Amino acid sequence: MRQRQRVLDTIRRIYEKHGFAPIETPAIENIETLMGKYGEEGDQLLFKILMRGAKAASGQCDLGLRYDLTVPLARFVAMHQNDIGRIFKRYQIQPVYRADRPGHGRFREFYQCDIDMIGAAAPLPEIALLNAVADVFAALSFDRICIHLNDRRILRALIDVSNIPVDLETTAITAIDKLDKIGVDGVLKELTERGIESDSAQKLLANIQAKDSNEATLQTLESLFANHADACQAVSELRVIISAAEGFANKPQIRISPELARGLNYYTGAIFEIQAEGLASSIAGGGRYDHLIGMFSGRDIPAVGISLGFERICVIMEERGMFADLGNDVDVVVAMAVPEALQAATSFAAQVRSLGCACELYPGFDKLAKQFKYANERHARYVAVFAQDELAAGTVTLKDMNSGTQCTAPVAALAMRDGNLVLDA
Amino acid sequence: MRQRQRVLDTIRRIYEKHGFAPIETPAIENIETLMGKYGEEGDQLLFKILMRGAKAASGQCDLGLRYDLTVPLARFVAMHQNDIGRIFKRYQIQPVYRADRPGHGRFREFYQCDIDMIGAAAPLPEIALLNAVADVFAALSFDRICIHLNDRRILRALIDVSNIPVDLETTAITAIDKLDKIGVDGVLKELTERGIESDSAQKLLANIQAKDSNEATLQTLESLFANHADACQAVSELRVIISAAEGFANKPQIRISPELARGLNYYTGAIFEIQAEGLASSIAGGGRYDHLIGMFSGRDIPAVGISLGFERICVIMEERGMFADLGNDVDVVVAMAVPEALQAATSFAAQVRSLGCACELYPGFDKLAKQFKYANERHARYVAVFAQDELAAGTVTLKDMNSGTQCTAPVAALAMRDGNLVLDA
Repeated sequence: MRQRQRVLDTIRRIYEKHGFAPIETPAIENIETLMGKYGEEGDQLLFKILMRGAKAASGQCDLGLRYDLTVPLARFVAMHQNDIGRIFKRYQIQPVYRADRPGHGRFREFYQCDIDMIGAAAPLPEIALLNAVADVFAALSFDRICIHLNDRRILRALIDVSNIPVDLETTAITAIDKLDKIGVDGVLKELTERGIESDSAQKLLANIQAKDSNEATLQTLESLFANHADACQAVSELRVIISAAEGFANKPQIRISPELARGLNYYTGAIFEIQAEGLASSIAGGGRYDHLIGMFSGRDIPAVGISLGFERICVIMEERGMFADLGNDVDVVVAMAVPEALQAATSFAAQVRSLGCACELYPGFDKLAKQFKYANERHARYVAVFAQDELAAGTVTLKDMNSGTQCTAPVAALAMRDGNLVLDA
Repeated sequence: MRQRQRVLDTIRRIYEKHGFAPIETPAIENIETLMGKYGEEGDQLLFKILMRGAKAASGQCDLGLRYDLTVPLARFVAMHQNDIGRIFKRYQIQPVYRADRPGHGRFREFYQCDIDMIGAAAPLPEIALLNAVADVFAALSFDRICIHLNDRRILRALIDVSNIPVDLETTAITAIDKLDKIGVDGVLKELTERGIESDSAQKLLANIQAKDSNEATLQTLESLFANHADACQAVSELRVIISAAEGFANKPQIRISPELARGLNYYTGAIFEIQAEGLASSIAGGGRYDHLIGMFSGRDIPAVGISLGFERICVIMEERGMFADLGNDVDVVVAMAVPEALQAATSFAAQVRSLGCACELYPGFDKLAKQFKYANERHARYVAVFAQDELAAGTVTLKDMNSGTQCTAPVAALAMRDGNLVLDA
């Protein structure tokens, strides 16, 4: 928990430095808000809440638990569009809920950390998000990240120039999204099974291959897009993103990846996935979704977001030993040999805390050996002892559990020197 | 949100200084874990989650949303009793869910901030919790709080010496709990309606009256408890709490209140409520619950906890202007007059952030007037401008929106002096 808290605090600090404000939305949304937004599989994975009171007997559900943070944000923006500014920059860190049978290290309740910018057209918001996220990963000591970039307009144009009918576009995107799981042959099989001509399928798979350099990839794409102005626009926006990233404080590696598809239906423009060095799966992903807010308000508002895979980030940091030492739960345990010591010990603990240390009283008057054992289990650096002698003399005995040295001196002599507690006798 | 975050950060910091560690538990619990723990009304107010898959058609529920943080903690301790230490000190800050029709300023989803100590007998854990909570309220600038103290053993003994049969004990406690809402006459009416003799009811109401001083109250109680050893023990524990509180860094007012009952069934020993000056309703409450964990594991473990009324605390702090200035969402907005400025502006923003400021690029190349308007709406202290001239010369123009002064100088001249951004030309 303390490691998780440290990661969350870092994310929060960096996002705020980039001018994003925190919001939270309720865990519970109206069921209609959630249904139909995540595809058929998503609908199956919603946790649904039974109606209350007399209506409970019907077995019907009117509410559900949030499945991600993007749909609640879109609902929020649609509801509050007159109260928030024209441009709305938010981050949101909350758990989401999926009625899955999760694999090892995955959970039905897990945190997402989203950052979104609402109200501005591409590509400057994309750049702002990628910049903030690059700074987050640097602050978490991920020193080499790779941002994979693509654009749904490019994918759609590639599907079109591969002679795949527009009504099979979503099918094709869903199949391509499985490329890293089922490989080229698997995707080819899935494409043809779903009714796409074998020639077209092969052409598509050739077209989505990245070239040696980003510029070569972009030029190859452009050469295919004579009749696709929006895809050409997408290519030029990707060039702007690549150029701007040169100015980031923490320059990421950027890779134009025309095979990047991302599963969700609602993307309309740029899409991204971020990988840490040496790991196949991504640690963040997102994209532009210019029509999602319009699904709630009837009026489209441009929007783009990135979601960090918080749980995966924590697992990787743990495995790679990337967490800095978090110190102990408690620095000083105060041991009392006699009940009469309680008030003096309580005062002393307050004095210790005022010096910046975490301090607790052992919660009983057990034998001192037992109290020292507890302090050891807690990895406390110091034990302060109040026994009859100390009480009578107005002193305290402070034992350094690292060095084993101890010292008895008046309580008032307690001080912090060079990060150590001392009794300046 | 930023105010709420500030309050949460303060609570977290103080609790950790008192040696409490954070935990989180899932929002979703098995329905049997929740049912029957909060009384009949509580069962009605649970959000219940429909079974998934084929079983959904049955309309049955196997899961529910947590209603408080104490029952999940007890379930957690019962499950993990071999993995946690003999003494377990935790704090937990998470939302809870109640299917209520909440009044003004109350919500169906709201945060609770709980602090608990498991595994140690009274009264030292009680003192540790009250000490931590007193320090939290002081850190939040509540300078005068009053802790109302009572003990369920005292209440039960008072019910007994008032000649009320033991099977009406819970009924009597429930009625007394309404004293501040329905007054003496209301409680008297409820007691007699529930089958308690009028004489006994009047005697009980007389017995629960506090005297002028805490010591007078305690002595009066003791005089009634010749045959109630556990109630005498409770009185002596309250004396220890009062004495120890003299050593707190932030000494609270303490009031022994024999009429304090608290609604929940699971309390077994000391109970507390904390009031802020000038407010009738409490801002925190809790007590000892030595049998709750045993309901899950079959083996009782002593435990005591306090829950802060986080939402109420935030409302009071807002109303009383107790929040320190949180600064602006963003300190510097960078305005670009031409697209060619993007890389230079991005670098500059990184430089500004490295000086500790929150900085963002205006997300477009609109007319400068529009960009300045945005910066004003964001209450940004500075606007940095990159136009054709600046780009050609490698300079930036920095305008202080407070003073209206502006200065153009090389980008490298940017510095922080006395909390202000300056171009040290």
